Amino acid sequence: MSENSMKVIGGGVTAAKGFVANALSCGIKKPEATRLDLALVYSELPTTSSGTFTTNRVRAACVRVSQNHLRRGNIRAIIANSGNANACTGAAGVAVARKECSIVAECLGVKASEVAVCSTGVIGLPMPMMRIEPRIPELCTNLSAGKGHDVASAIITSDTREKEEAVEITVGGKPIRIGSCCKGAGMISPCMATMICLICTDAAVAREHLDTIVHNGVEHSFNRITIDGDMSTNDTVLVMANGASGVELAPGKPGWEDFVAALNHVMMAQAKHIVQDGERVTKFVTVRVKGAPTATEAKKVAEGVAKSSLVKSSWNGGDPNWGRIIHAVGYSGSRVREEKVDIDIAGLPACRGGMQTDTPSDDLRERVQAREFEIDINLNMGAEEYVIYTTDLSPEYVDFNRSEYAYWNQAKQDGLTR
Amino acid sequence: MSENSMKVIGGGVTAAKGFVANALSCGIKKPEATRLDLALVYSELPTTSSGTFTTNRVRAACVRVSQNHLRRGNIRAIIANSGNANACTGAAGVAVARKECSIVAECLGVKASEVAVCSTGVIGLPMPMMRIEPRIPELCTNLSAGKGHDVASAIITSDTREKEEAVEITVGGKPIRIGSCCKGAGMISPCMATMICLICTDAAVAREHLDTIVHNGVEHSFNRITIDGDMSTNDTVLVMANGASGVELAPGKPGWEDFVAALNHVMMAQAKHIVQDGERVTKFVTVRVKGAPTATEAKKVAEGVAKSSLVKSSWNGGDPNWGRIIHAVGYSGSRVREEKVDIDIAGLPACRGGMQTDTPSDDLRERVQAREFEIDINLNMGAEEYVIYTTDLSPEYVDFNRSEYAYWNQAKQDGLTR
Repeated sequence: MSENSMKVIGGGVTAAKGFVANALSCGIKKPEATRLDLALVYSELPTTSSGTFTTNRVRAACVRVSQNHLRRGNIRAIIANSGNANACTGAAGVAVARKECSIVAECLGVKASEVAVCSTGVIGLPMPMMRIEPRIPELCTNLSAGKGHDVASAIITSDTREKEEAVEITVGGKPIRIGSCCKGAGMISPCMATMICLICTDAAVAREHLDTIVHNGVEHSFNRITIDGDMSTNDTVLVMANGASGVELAPGKPGWEDFVAALNHVMMAQAKHIVQDGERVTKFVTVRVKGAPTATEAKKVAEGVAKSSLVKSSWNGGDPNWGRIIHAVGYSGSRVREEKVDIDIAGLPACRGGMQTDTPSDDLRERVQAREFEIDINLNMGAEEYVIYTTDLSPEYVDFNRSEYAYWNQAKQDGLTR
Repeated sequence: MSENSMKVIGGGVTAAKGFVANALSCGIKKPEATRLDLALVYSELPTTSSGTFTTNRVRAACVRVSQNHLRRGNIRAIIANSGNANACTGAAGVAVARKECSIVAECLGVKASEVAVCSTGVIGLPMPMMRIEPRIPELCTNLSAGKGHDVASAIITSDTREKEEAVEITVGGKPIRIGSCCKGAGMISPCMATMICLICTDAAVAREHLDTIVHNGVEHSFNRITIDGDMSTNDTVLVMANGASGVELAPGKPGWEDFVAALNHVMMAQAKHIVQDGERVTKFVTVRVKGAPTATEAKKVAEGVAKSSLVKSSWNGGDPNWGRIIHAVGYSGSRVREEKVDIDIAGLPACRGGMQTDTPSDDLRERVQAREFEIDINLNMGAEEYVIYTTDLSPEYVDFNRSEYAYWNQAKQDGLTR
């Protein structure tokens, strides 16, 4: 494709034709709260749908239900909430997720299996259904294309801002749009993040092709980010394609490559939004590994560096500490020959053949004061590469994550825990 | 053995007969510093010796040289410094480590291959040999059994206190002693920590038996601790047995079991000392996993929990957050069936069958205010177990590790870097 043919446009999850939404405030986290915390996205036309989910062995009830519905066919609606993850809630949690789908289905006149459900928030507490259930009928009325941004607001938790990305391509003179919203911002690690990403397009794409490009896209975007190395129980990417543009796309047909590139752009942009808005982060760092003997080893090295507390602490301090980087390379599990390792920091050679270069340390130091920089590691042992997007680790991150008492205290008042 | 037969005694690395030591201040980190930073331990008699070293693929020069010397035979002296790790220093670093050994050997009248060398400190900067080399002859004179504590002082870096442990057993009416000193306190992860542990005993033990019990002991002590998940380039455990007690020990002979237990006690005590004095830690947490399908999976679960930034942050906050624990169990790489997972926190049931128990959250909360507590995880999927000793993650840890500028600035003044 020519990148020029894709336009980034305003708007979010309802940017494409035929998608409407609503969001409201249920007080899921605490009754008196006024922030939006329950959202619905609905396709006015039937769709083909695809999704990818956490590979954590502990999967939230909503993930199980959504996976099941996607296995049975395509979806037309997604109900999503923040404030409670509906994870580790047993059979009762699954019943709650199913109940949400069936109420939505009844209100919208679709099958329960055509509804997916996403939850994000604290793990291990029952969902406060006494505050959610009565509001679902209201959620399903007054749907409009103008409320996409409300969905973006309703699903975020510790994120500091909404994350939306929408693009348009033109195929045979007709516009095709892809719109999306997503949330981060802690428990972010490859395969996948504690994230929800909802993507809606008005292209018509057969399910099998959609599955292929969604899985490929996730592999190169959401599966390559890490903030804190913690993989959530709730990670979900859902994609609906409803054909409202009147354009049918398939491999080999005009516009297919443009569409795949546009979808990849949306996923990569959202993945980077998540990293850039990681909990209390101050740096966005791209770790590129090359010269690895195998792809698996390239990945191990990149993840080893991107997850090292000591490396991440040094980035927080603006310290171009290549010694800590090479120590993480060494324990990553990849074959490594120390005397072959080259490391560039922010474009400057910091280490050659496992030893310091004569780059003045002040120059390196100055470069890593920037908010974004790259670490390039060459093992010089092969041709395989891997890239990962990550952050620093800040004292404020730890402080921010010291306690979730507030959730427990509210759950006690709700009679949902002791 | 009867535990009663072992006495914990005062003293450190020179507690056993026939070991002498010295330490002095070279200003390795900065010339004007007065703290002890160079130490020597010497056995007046020939020894059998054993050692275990980091499995990091990036190995410090001192580790390479010590490994080589131990392969060639037994050692009689150990020279150790803090302030510079002599890691990632290439062939020049190896030459420096060899030089240290040969000067010590000449002064003491032993072979260079009978000297081991340990360094700990910053990675990637050349050793300031202009301040070390001229002082080695002085280090090798005035050796005495009374200076064991000085060695413990000279090898610590970010540790807040010296770490010594010494015990005595009696075999056939004769006392046998094992004395030790070690250092932590960052880059602490299984296999092994950024640690140096020197152990001296006056028992006589054949090399092959010593190797066996040292490796087993390390596997159950130093390889089961993690503070920050970062494995150092310099980890070293060295053991010298000089027979000065006049008691020869071997499997099947009287006193062997007592001796093995005593050695294990020393290693485990030192491993716990390291964790308890981890950089800016406030909690000592024992993570016990049982009911795993395989030993490898038991270990994966324990390490997954012990290395999770989110779990460790919650411990720092005194938050009994079993939801974060089970999420780490889920992504650890072990087979896990969520509905079978039981978690006890500080002796109270927090999770049964993957769901919350009715233990009042205030009771759990109260228990984790303690400085030490246990997490017991039962996967209920087999009979394998694993235990790991770890800490919380504090905002102060991150802050403490933000920068190593001071080292670089000094190295620049020393002409060792630009």
